Amino acid sequence: MSLTAPLHGVVPPVCTPLDDRGEVDTASLTRLVGHLVDGGVHGLFALGSTSEVAYLTDARRATALETVVTAAAGRVPVLAGVIDTTTARVTEHARTAMELGADALVATAPFYTRTHPKEVAGHFRRLRATVDLPLFAYDIPVAVHSKLSPALVRELAEDGTLAGLKDSSGDEGGLRRLIVELGGREGRADGPVPHFSVLTGSELTVDAALLAGADGVVPGIGNVDPAGYVRLYDAARAGDWALASREQERLVELFAMVDVGPEQDMGRSSSALGAFKAALQLLGVIDNGATAFPQLPLSAESVALVRERLHGAGLPPVR
Amino acid sequence: MSLTAPLHGVVPPVCTPLDDRGEVDTASLTRLVGHLVDGGVHGLFALGSTSEVAYLTDARRATALETVVTAAAGRVPVLAGVIDTTTARVTEHARTAMELGADALVATAPFYTRTHPKEVAGHFRRLRATVDLPLFAYDIPVAVHSKLSPALVRELAEDGTLAGLKDSSGDEGGLRRLIVELGGREGRADGPVPHFSVLTGSELTVDAALLAGADGVVPGIGNVDPAGYVRLYDAARAGDWALASREQERLVELFAMVDVGPEQDMGRSSSALGAFKAALQLLGVIDNGATAFPQLPLSAESVALVRERLHGAGLPPVR
Amino acid sequence: MSLTAPLHGVVPPVCTPLDDRGEVDTASLTRLVGHLVDGGVHGLFALGSTSEVAYLTDARRATALETVVTAAAGRVPVLAGVIDTTTARVTEHARTAMELGADALVATAPFYTRTHPKEVAGHFRRLRATVDLPLFAYDIPVAVHSKLSPALVRELAEDGTLAGLKDSSGDEGGLRRLIVELGGREGRADGPVPHFSVLTGSELTVDAALLAGADGVVPGIGNVDPAGYVRLYDAARAGDWALASREQERLVELFAMVDVGPEQDMGRSSSALGAFKAALQLLGVIDNGATAFPQLPLSAESVALVRERLHGAGLPPVR
Amino acid sequence: MSLTAPLHGVVPPVCTPLDDRGEVDTASLTRLVGHLVDGGVHGLFALGSTSEVAYLTDARRATALETVVTAAAGRVPVLAGVIDTTTARVTEHARTAMELGADALVATAPFYTRTHPKEVAGHFRRLRATVDLPLFAYDIPVAVHSKLSPALVRELAEDGTLAGLKDSSGDEGGLRRLIVELGGREGRADGPVPHFSVLTGSELTVDAALLAGADGVVPGIGNVDPAGYVRLYDAARAGDWALASREQERLVELFAMVDVGPEQDMGRSSSALGAFKAALQLLGVIDNGATAFPQLPLSAESVALVRERLHGAGLPPVR
Repeated sequence: MSLTAPLHGVVPPVCTPLDDRGEVDTASLTRLVGHLVDGGVHGLFALGSTSEVAYLTDARRATALETVVTAAAGRVPVLAGVIDTTTARVTEHARTAMELGADALVATAPFYTRTHPKEVAGHFRRLRATVDLPLFAYDIPVAVHSKLSPALVRELAEDGTLAGLKDSSGDEGGLRRLIVELGGREGRADGPVPHFSVLTGSELTVDAALLAGADGVVPGIGNVDPAGYVRLYDAARAGDWALASREQERLVELFAMVDVGPEQDMGRSSSALGAFKAALQLLGVIDNGATAFPQLPLSAESVALVRERLHGAGLPPVR
Repeated sequence: MSLTAPLHGVVPPVCTPLDDRGEVDTASLTRLVGHLVDGGVHGLFALGSTSEVAYLTDARRATALETVVTAAAGRVPVLAGVIDTTTARVTEHARTAMELGADALVATAPFYTRTHPKEVAGHFRRLRATVDLPLFAYDIPVAVHSKLSPALVRELAEDGTLAGLKDSSGDEGGLRRLIVELGGREGRADGPVPHFSVLTGSELTVDAALLAGADGVVPGIGNVDPAGYVRLYDAARAGDWALASREQERLVELFAMVDVGPEQDMGRSSSALGAFKAALQLLGVIDNGATAFPQLPLSAESVALVRERLHGAGLPPVR
Repeated sequence: MSLTAPLHGVVPPVCTPLDDRGEVDTASLTRLVGHLVDGGVHGLFALGSTSEVAYLTDARRATALETVVTAAAGRVPVLAGVIDTTTARVTEHARTAMELGADALVATAPFYTRTHPKEVAGHFRRLRATVDLPLFAYDIPVAVHSKLSPALVRELAEDGTLAGLKDSSGDEGGLRRLIVELGGREGRADGPVPHFSVLTGSELTVDAALLAGADGVVPGIGNVDPAGYVRLYDAARAGDWALASREQERLVELFAMVDVGPEQDMGRSSSALGAFKAALQLLGVIDNGATAFPQLPLSAESVALVRERLHGAGLPPVR
Repeated sequence: MSLTAPLHGVVPPVCTPLDDRGEVDTASLTRLVGHLVDGGVHGLFALGSTSEVAYLTDARRATALETVVTAAAGRVPVLAGVIDTTTARVTEHARTAMELGADALVATAPFYTRTHPKEVAGHFRRLRATVDLPLFAYDIPVAVHSKLSPALVRELAEDGTLAGLKDSSGDEGGLRRLIVELGGREGRADGPVPHFSVLTGSELTVDAALLAGADGVVPGIGNVDPAGYVRLYDAARAGDWALASREQERLVELFAMVDVGPEQDMGRSSSALGAFKAALQLLGVIDNGATAFPQLPLSAESVALVRERLHGAGLPPVR
């Protein structure tokens, strides 16, 4: 499906289930897509950070994306992360993503190398000019160690380079300024910058982002509870902020599962992604909760804590 | 006045007007306090970062605090920043603040030196034990270069060391988790951790913070438009989130004045505090918009931009 | 050639000359290798940061490495950078590098993702176990945003995972501690940790690193003046520290060319790599000084400053 | 004594012995000064970071400085740290230091607040103009979170604002560039920038810094082994770099005492300063190894490790 309307709503970054050899478990991934679409999500983001894209070889990336596109079957749009260090490498991923049927691309600023706003602008423009799919900027300083300035995003929104922003910067004040400067909800729907979608990756403050005028959310823990985020989104759209806030609070408590892996023993990625995948396994959605090497596996105690969090949030495990 | 109830509402960090020699302009400061109290604020935070506390000698700090306490005249509580590198030095400021009539203290983690969560905990406990005033933790990593973890704040809330938190960390997700873990709005008012006030320093997302259950806000630009923040707070308390959000958007546009000083020419402190003070001068509240040395003064062009922002926000200058 | 002896001496990270379409200019690269080997260098590091590895597609990486190996023709060992985000992707590069005839591999810690020392250790061990070539750890926090601790390097040296370290961390004190803990010059040659090579990437303090017991240097500006670094190395080996220091000072002045691109206008990578390549073009070694997109090209004024630096260092341009 | 010649040699930052109530133990401090002067040091730096200046009230700072000046008795110059957030506060410390007999001042860039190079330049110039003592810039990004650029230091050296630099930035490459740009050893002694002293605070690479042309060193662990650093300095001055390097290696091993406090249990300041003071107590120089609150005390096991390090370095404890 093409992105005829501005992207909005709940667009989870789809986890990539793996088998014990690290290969993509396509049967589990197909079930996960079903779980998300059945939960009412409005789009799917494949090959994002939560998808462990940085851990997947090109062949595994292709398998994962193809599986998501096939399983989505046009019911919701599929965005594909094209994550690599610089323009030439990203462009190759973008071409592959288009061939595999992605509806839009999500790209970060260059990383590993030291860069500059003028170079970042050139990077997005070249990418947009080379591969003809809507392009979302992925602002994720924790991964790429530079921040997309609101001024740069605005410039690339106004000249049509970008179709939207996936903001994982955690800078909610900056995002608020950007939304106001782009003209607010009204301006973005019908103003000088039509069809620019602002999606927040800050999954603990989605009610706030929607109140501020964001179009949607890309919640990692939306893999585990897509219906919860859809309820939150619907409440916000209906103007029932008290209900939205209560749903958000339930999801905040569920989210605490990301801390099950003790900080001194494993990386934050191992702990958070391990928890999401353990939850999906406990819920019967995927077969194997393993994360990609060299991430460390959760201990049995940590998995037990994930189980508790699921119970606490009203999502009883089936295993 | 004493803090019998949990602190809530709009508690601006009071700017410190200076004369050309860098001395505290007590007449202007007295007028500024009047401007704020007339605007309906619920408390005053003297000697905070926005008060240029880091630029004031001990004598000037005392003059500023004494002036604020006298001008407030018990109508609203006065919190006093006790900002210094480590416990012994902070304690001296705390004793002075108590003598001068402050109703509560606001202290950061140690800075300049490298510290540790166990040392930070000891710091706050010793301070609370030594000077008998309610103590607020001031989480401001941009100044002290360490972050108060939610776990530490919770521990110090539960054992009664802290009466509240002034959060200027910008970590809205972490703040949301803290509020949920402390028991939410209800829990804080009537639960195991009574009287713990969460105040956000993120002045661009106050509607969001209040929706999340924060008790109040400490907005730097509240010096310029206290009544605006009070309207925002009142709308939120009344559950009129659409109105709160619109008021916030107006304040976001007003806030853009902090960027009038070009980044390559001056520090962020010079630009933001210079803009606030220029606005207060243009509004006829204070006599002199100068910031403390070695901050750089705004150019005439920059002041003209401040003037535009005031007009845009419906706050016409009188000069 | 195989690495039968511990790697030592001057091992420049070989620049990758490009044509106007961004393809590897193999004729220029072959001439550059000749320039370096004729200058007396002791090894070549292909596909490092200075080689713009992060900008090269896999096909271009292969072309560059193959060209360097062929041109080196066994006269000096060729180390190949295998730079990618995590283990599975790095392993694919490592297999290719072995097939193309590299004598050793140089790998960083995982990047883009958040990691942990235990995961970093697993990463290097898996890599060493999978591809049978000597493995060097590349400590470059400015690119990967984590630092290899001396304790971790020591552990991986002692268990035979690592053949050496390329230290671009800038932490000279930490490097000194590591060298002392590994047993000093003598210990490394004939002690419990034989054949562990410490190479510094800090090209402005090579005399100091050699005095401290480092085995060699990987100097980016060694592309421009390989003979200068070889003279510096030889003087140090001969114990003539006054001569080594004077040669280093001349190279410090030459190195100032990295600042020709004004900071507000381009990234540090554009400026430094652009200067090296401009110098190589001016010296007649390569045909085209272009850097890879989206790096910005040097202005004519900047190139003129490079020309001055070459004259100042006694390296008269031929163009 | 006045600083008639450029400062050079070994200038330890003098530890501040404390009693159990946190008061300055003047008898121990007097003995420590004797230990240092007897060890052959060329100057004393009171009220530096290693002196725990950030932990001392103004009264305790005055006591410490007065004691050091009295005990030095004109045998070596005394530099006084004037460490505070901004110019007005630093100026007050500077006036006190002059009254108490300091021979020179050591000041950092402003901290706590966000600053700018133009403001930093104004800060040092105002300070130099206000208090008539030679002024050293203290570049310590780990404490103040900004770096003095070589260009700024050079500007302030050339206009006579600064008499020297105490470099604790760890950026040895940048320091090398500065020394070369200032004209090298010869230039500084007899060139356009006379009497500018470059002192390194990187105590693990002093041989390297002296080889590069630095004038001296400010070594924290020089409190414990002043004679060792003097031997290192003398060897370097005599051109015996092999001897200098061996002495440095012994001191590197001694320095490892800073790690005795486990990282997860205490701050780096507690561990390093606690080790220095424990060593001084074990050597019989001071009575009490306590560090200032809220730093944590070393455990008995940690003190035992300090004892081992002393034995290993040929400095047998007397207690």
